[in-house]
Order: sequence, then C-alpha cells, then structure tokens
Amino acid sequence: MQRIGDTLAKIEPLREEFFEKAQQRLDSHAKPRGSLGRLEDFAKRYVAITENLKPRVVNKFIFTFAGDHGVVDEGVSVFPKEVTRQMILNFIGGGAGVNVLAKHVGVEVVVVDIGVDHDFGSLEGLLGKKVAFGTKNMSKGPAMSVEEAVGAINVGIDIAEEYAGKGADIFGTGDMGIGNTTPSSAILAVITGETVEMVAGRGTGIDDRTLGKKIEAIKKAISINSPNPKDPLEVLATIGGLEIAGIAGLIIGAASCRVPIVVDGFISTAGALIATEMNPLIKSYLFASHQSAESGHKIMLERIGLEPMLDLSLRLGEGTGAALGISLVEAGVKILTEMATFTEAGVEEAATL
Amino acid sequence: MQRIGDTLAKIEPLREEFFEKAQQRLDSHAKPRGSLGRLEDFAKRYVAITENLKPRVVNKFIFTFAGDHGVVDEGVSVFPKEVTRQMILNFIGGGAGVNVLAKHVGVEVVVVDIGVDHDFGSLEGLLGKKVAFGTKNMSKGPAMSVEEAVGAINVGIDIAEEYAGKGADIFGTGDMGIGNTTPSSAILAVITGETVEMVAGRGTGIDDRTLGKKIEAIKKAISINSPNPKDPLEVLATIGGLEIAGIAGLIIGAASCRVPIVVDGFISTAGALIATEMNPLIKSYLFASHQSAESGHKIMLERIGLEPMLDLSLRLGEGTGAALGISLVEAGVKILTEMATFTEAGVEEAATL
Repeated sequence: MQRIGDTLAKIEPLREEFFEKAQQRLDSHAKPRGSLGRLEDFAKRYVAITENLKPRVVNKFIFTFAGDHGVVDEGVSVFPKEVTRQMILNFIGGGAGVNVLAKHVGVEVVVVDIGVDHDFGSLEGLLGKKVAFGTKNMSKGPAMSVEEAVGAINVGIDIAEEYAGKGADIFGTGDMGIGNTTPSSAILAVITGETVEMVAGRGTGIDDRTLGKKIEAIKKAISINSPNPKDPLEVLATIGGLEIAGIAGLIIGAASCRVPIVVDGFISTAGALIATEMNPLIKSYLFASHQSAESGHKIMLERIGLEPMLDLSLRLGEGTGAALGISLVEAGVKILTEMATFTEAGVEEAATL
Repeated sequence: MQRIGDTLAKIEPLREEFFEKAQQRLDSHAKPRGSLGRLEDFAKRYVAITENLKPRVVNKFIFTFAGDHGVVDEGVSVFPKEVTRQMILNFIGGGAGVNVLAKHVGVEVVVVDIGVDHDFGSLEGLLGKKVAFGTKNMSKGPAMSVEEAVGAINVGIDIAEEYAGKGADIFGTGDMGIGNTTPSSAILAVITGETVEMVAGRGTGIDDRTLGKKIEAIKKAISINSPNPKDPLEVLATIGGLEIAGIAGLIIGAASCRVPIVVDGFISTAGALIATEMNPLIKSYLFASHQSAESGHKIMLERIGLEPMLDLSLRLGEGTGAALGISLVEAGVKILTEMATFTEAGVEEAATL
C-alpha cells in the first residue's frame, strides 16, 4: 500500500510551457499550421510528458501481462482456461498477433506471468512475476485478497521503474487471460454505475447463451462482493484480475517515471481506469491506441477522457492495438523533430495567419 | 484516349475465391475469429488484388504529383503559387512531412513534376513529366485542354506500369499544388451535385473572406465551363488539375496491373473519384488512408464507397496520410502471413464456433 501511495504521489501534472515550446517548433515547420492534426497533439504531449524538446522514440516495449480467472468456471468464455498457458508459449515462440505487429513497428514484447494457473518454472523469454495461480471465482467471493491486488500492482510498478531506468522511451500495455473481459466489464459497471447489460460484450465471440452466463456471473460478483465504487483498490481486488492489476501498476509506475504509455484495448483500459481513479493526473500520460469492438470500451474511454487513435474493430488484446498506436505516437514525434523549417527549406510562409 | 480506354478495359473484378482462401488462412491462426477486425479485411483484399496468398509488402512507393493552378489568381489560397516550386525542393531535400512519415514506415517517395509553373531543367530526385506549366484559371475558361488532361492521366498510367514492372508491392498517392483544394472541391460539386458551399473547405487554413473568394471562383468555373457530370474526363479537363489527373492515371494504371493503392487525402481522393467514375471496378483496388479535416472529404469518400482507416484531422496532403495507411495495410498482410496457426502454436480452438 505504502509503495503504491508513494508512487501515486510522485505523479505531476504536465507543464503548459512544454506544450507551448513544442507548438512553436511545430509551427516553424514548412506546412500549414496544425495541418498534421492529432499527430501534432501526440508530439506535444510526448514532449510535455518527457520534458524533452528533442525526444527520440527508440526503446519501445509492450508488456503483455497474463493471468487466469476463476470466473471461467461460470462458463463465460468459449475458450478453455488452458489457452492462457498455451498462448504464453505462443508469445514466447513469436507467433502471436502481438509479436507480428510489434515486430512490424519495431517494439519489443515482454511477456509477464503475473497470475497464470500453471507453473512454468524458469522459462526463457518469460518474466516470472507470479502473484497467484489465477484469481478465485469472483461470483462466489473476492477474486483476490487486497494483499494479492497490491502485490500485482507492485509488480507493474517494479517493471515500469526497471525499464524506465534502462532508458525506455515508450510503453505499451497488453493482456492475456481467458475470461478477462468479464472482470473488466465488472470493474466498468461498478465504477461508472452503468448496467451490466450495457457494459458486458461478446469478448472473443460468445453467443447469446454464453453472454447471458457472463452477465449473470458479473451480477453475482458485484452482489456478493459489493465493492465500494469510490475505492478502486477494493474494486480491483474483489472483481478484477491479476493482469489488470499489473497493467494498472505499470501505468502508475510509468506516469511516475514520465514514460508515455500507449493503452491497448478493453482489458488494458480497465487497468487504466483503476489507475486513473487512483490519481486522475495519470490521464495525461496515456494514449488510447484504439476503439475496440468490445461494446463497453467506448464508455470506458469516455469515463477516463481518452480519444482513441484507431477504430479498426480490433478485439484481440495482447497489446496488438498498442503496437499500432506506438507507431503513430512515434510518427508524431518525428514530425516534431525531423521536419525542415520554413527557413531551412526556403519556403514562404502563409500570407495571412 | 485510346490508351486510357484500353487500360480501363483491362481492370477486372476481384475474385471471391481469393477472399475465401485468405479467410481460411486467417481463421487457422491462434486468435478468436475476426478479432483483428479491419486488419483482416485489408489482408483479404490485398490477397484478392494481387491474387497471391502469401504476399509480402516490401517495395512501397508514394508518388507525390505536383502541379500549379491558374485559379490561384482569384485569391483562393493564403500561400503564394511559388510555394509549389519551393516545396518540390523541400521534398527532394527530404525535409517535408511526407518524407518524414514515409521514412518512418519504410516507403520511398517519388516526386513527379506533372505541371509546376517553373522550369526545373534536369533536377536529381525529381521525375520530370511536365505536361504544362500549370493549369489556366478555370474561373475564366477550361483549366486544361482535353489533350492536356489525357496527357497527364497517361503520365500516371506510365508510372504505374513502370513501377509495377519493377516489382512494386503497393502504391500510395500524394499531391502538391498551391490552390488545389479548389479544383478538388469543384470536381466533387459537379460529380455529386452537392452545393459548392457544402464541399468547399478551408484547405491550408483560409479565413472566411478567402473562403468566400474560393466559393465564388468555383461557382464561376462551373458556370463558365458547365462540364457534363457524366463525363469525368471533361470534368477533369475543365475544372481539375494536372496533379489530380496524374493521380487518377496512377490509380487506373495500378488497378490494371493489380497493384494495391492507398489513397491520401482530399486532392488524392478527387483523383480517385475521377478514376472510379471512369470505371467503378477500380474501387476494389483502393484503400482510403484517412478521413481528412477538409470538410468535403467525407462526402467524397462516401461517393466512392470507401471507409477511411484513420481519422487524425490531417489536412496536409503530400501523401502523409497514405504513408500511415500503407503501414496499416502492411500490418494486415503480416497478420495473414506471419502468425502461427492453432496447430503450430499448440493452442486449443474455441469450444463453440
């Protein structure tokens, strides 16, 4: 608790002067003012986060946090729980969606076992940070103890601080965990007060019957645990997930170290929601990579106050959307740092501006 | 005329069997079906265009067609006409927005002088294909003769065929030409029948007074030339531009050679509109990179039937949006070709699908 509180307390608001200096530089470039739209916004915010007017986005990491979910026993997913473990091996082998997209944009994927229901021992390519062998079935009691939730958040903070210390320029979030849209929807329902029906979606592609089970499981979980919506840690512990906690911790740690973070889809945004409920200043450090096809994602992004970069109907998670988002933030930064000015290029400025 | 007609006649509809085969391959990958959304659509269409089930997107080119516009005399832009020439030098120097973004995504920029009002002589890094020293003032008569318009389309076809012959995997379109939102809006108004007020936007950032002049100039141009909306060549010649014609030609040539084309913003889409009005089959070969901040762009994309990939309020042109779009199409293709299957990865498939 102490560590989380201390880290949250270190997070500062972004300073307006860095936005202004970046804007001046952008306006000196040989192009109509503001004509690169949101790419320019990404650049300005990147500068304000890092407090560096000539940043380079070189060391890029996506952390894919994996955990299992006891609530899978309620029949909320079409995939068996074993798939979480199997996908870990696929990530390490380099054959998963996030591997392909991260490689495409020059990002390293770090796979974190924070709560998979399997003992991997020491496995090359896997960051072993297991807090528990999955959560308990939240529709029968708390998913985690508060100690487990705190431990999982601390894993994220540790990783953020370690990689920030190694000179990371940007982080992306990712998740793997069969059943994990269920706790993500539960968190969203409790924090926003929306109905479960409104925020529970089809995840990996469930049918009406399975969706019914999922809604029922979430309602039971909220009813039996009745977490206080004003206490994000309690919400996380009772109806959350270990990977969601790890992502929340990564985000908290990154913001405290001034590393920009690109948030992936629905599960990652649930982690971002927990983090921003703990400290709203964190919002300024986040870039929302995409609007997921998962129905509750829009509500979640609006609650935090983030505008997604892409709307490609993605719903895979893993960090796939974050990979594409990192490339767009990097594009914005390069617009700031690599374009020639009107003077350098010998181009006349607009007659009236 | 003969060459354009012959090229248009070579364009074939895409074959359903290639979509199906690509879909089968995508569904064998270790991920929930359809969970990579539009990235999967890009991959399927790329396969159907190239008729290659294992494509690689390696040789990538953006063609930035530059031309001047006589209608600038009507005071439709805040930038002087000389900026077209100055920006050509900036492109060649590598300092423009399109250079930065193309480099970011591994795309080569080819700058084409198709109608700049300046004699560059032989300039390294510039593809000299000048058809005329700019268009005439369309608000006083035809912008081009039909011969000039045909010549400029043929330049685009020639380039497409040449680069397709050299093994290009994908093309992006780009434009440079002070004043060129004016003819683009005029084309849109005539072809769709929308009011000029509805389709004329603020281009590089003009004020109300300049916007008034622009609307007036377009109305005069349409009134004095009264092009037949059913005759895209006549529309192009009378109220278009040389770079718009070149882009239309590139698109026609690319579709005839089965090279996928990523269309940039408002001016490029005006070229795509001319091309698709000549042969609607071309639509299947096009990817719309982004929704521009220019007000008429949405109407233009809807008329063609294209859904943009990005909505980042870009309004620079040059091919900047096309660069980002090419990277997304490439990402989709890699999802098809580089991901491990359920069998390869040892991952169980969904229980019910």
